[in-house]
Amino acid sequence: MMISIVGLGLIGGSFAKDLRKAGLADGLLGVETSPEHARRALELQLVDRIVPLFEAMRESDVLLLATPVDAIEAILPVILETVRPDQTVIDMGSAKLRIVETVRGHANRARYVAAHPMAGTENAGPDAALEDLFRGKTVLLCDLDASAPDACKTALEIFHAVGMKFEFMTADQHDRHAAYVSHLSHVAAYALSLAVQTEEKAGYAVPRLAGGGFASTVRLAKSSPEMWVPIFRHNREQVLHSIEAFSECLQVFKTCLEAEDYRRLDTLIREANQIRDLL
Amino acid sequence: MMISIVGLGLIGGSFAKDLRKAGLADGLLGVETSPEHARRALELQLVDRIVPLFEAMRESDVLLLATPVDAIEAILPVILETVRPDQTVIDMGSAKLRIVETVRGHANRARYVAAHPMAGTENAGPDAALEDLFRGKTVLLCDLDASAPDACKTALEIFHAVGMKFEFMTADQHDRHAAYVSHLSHVAAYALSLAVQTEEKAGYAVPRLAGGGFASTVRLAKSSPEMWVPIFRHNREQVLHSIEAFSECLQVFKTCLEAEDYRRLDTLIREANQIRDLL
Repeated sequence: MMISIVGLGLIGGSFAKDLRKAGLADGLLGVETSPEHARRALELQLVDRIVPLFEAMRESDVLLLATPVDAIEAILPVILETVRPDQTVIDMGSAKLRIVETVRGHANRARYVAAHPMAGTENAGPDAALEDLFRGKTVLLCDLDASAPDACKTALEIFHAVGMKFEFMTADQHDRHAAYVSHLSHVAAYALSLAVQTEEKAGYAVPRLAGGGFASTVRLAKSSPEMWVPIFRHNREQVLHSIEAFSECLQVFKTCLEAEDYRRLDTLIREANQIRDLL
Repeated sequence: MMISIVGLGLIGGSFAKDLRKAGLADGLLGVETSPEHARRALELQLVDRIVPLFEAMRESDVLLLATPVDAIEAILPVILETVRPDQTVIDMGSAKLRIVETVRGHANRARYVAAHPMAGTENAGPDAALEDLFRGKTVLLCDLDASAPDACKTALEIFHAVGMKFEFMTADQHDRHAAYVSHLSHVAAYALSLAVQTEEKAGYAVPRLAGGGFASTVRLAKSSPEMWVPIFRHNREQVLHSIEAFSECLQVFKTCLEAEDYRRLDTLIREANQIRDLL
């Protein structure tokens, strides 16, 4: 099949590498609005050609949308206007509800599959593309009852080809889940980075003199605003909900320390330790 | 030289491995109050023998204290009571001020060197000991003007043997720095774990369906209360200070989302991104 990838950053570029390796695609086309990213994608041989969106739509069996979620929201309805019954459109955005709402009831809604491959790094752009980024990870497929069976089958085939496991849920469930296990981690890392940088400027903390623990906890703070501001906007309510829950847990820690209640602090840490069993 | 390691967990056990590899020690003795850890340390050949503390004190040139900080606080004054002028005692606790205060003005204070090797993992016990855990990492050496020059030299020799870089600061500076680049990361990870587990119990979040980002951010939440409650107790004020600063940064994020001020959110994320240049 002929596959077009719209957006050749970390996710789109990594898909290009693995799809090529899997031998699933007869050809790989790329759509990329950044001239610099387009040039790098060709240099890295991520795709065979860079083409305009309308050409990708004409020539492809499958379109994979791997842009920031605001761009997905903008182009998906346009794509569905002219999509053919033999074509499948799959978006890979990190927030799902607003996107599926945008095309709910659209005449060609059934050609579209809402997906979120739960994999990534803190880096962006074609140079961040990694082989095997998705292997062994899970793709969350949302609202599949609104997608045509053959479109679902194509999506499963593609995610299977890059080594992913499947889970099925509604877009609503997805967004609440993703707020906690992905979006909140980013908020926490951004806030940690800002707090430590303020101390660093005051001369009291030296991030480069940290052990691996700090680097691990703050890693996601390197993630780009181009990707993350739209995700926070799309999933605003659930992210706010998760920040509140997180702030409350922090407050409990603070109260324990203020009251010097080390027995309760011990209990809290033991509860927190149980994340071992859930990962 | 003959080296005794008091506490054969992650840090003590990893030191044992690297000191043996470096060929610096003529013999390695272990002091370990947990019979199970003592048995495992011998099975893993971390040390030659397990001995009582008084025997370690009699037979060693150097004592490395690698227990939780509350145990260091308890045994360091006892050790200094009987330390000989040819012996060096080095503690490797993650909070320093309370420990150095405990022995400030002690007749044998000069035989003691306060150190914090900034390396570790979320695991505990002799089985968590890792070769090369310290290589390329930094050891923070505190209040060295209170230690005898030959004791400082011995400490530098030992940390150099396991591949560490040196930084020098006061215990006071250390504790404020460590609150931000180490202790706060643990609080954030514990709070993230608790928030996500509450959602998991409510049926809305599935941690095993997370990508690598969540695993990275929450990793430190697996760290044991035996080690961390004493650190939080020792560095209570600075940790409280850091939690407050962190909570304020979180609040700014929350305010941006509530007000839908995405331009400011973009600016905040760009500031947070600058941690790249500081690591």
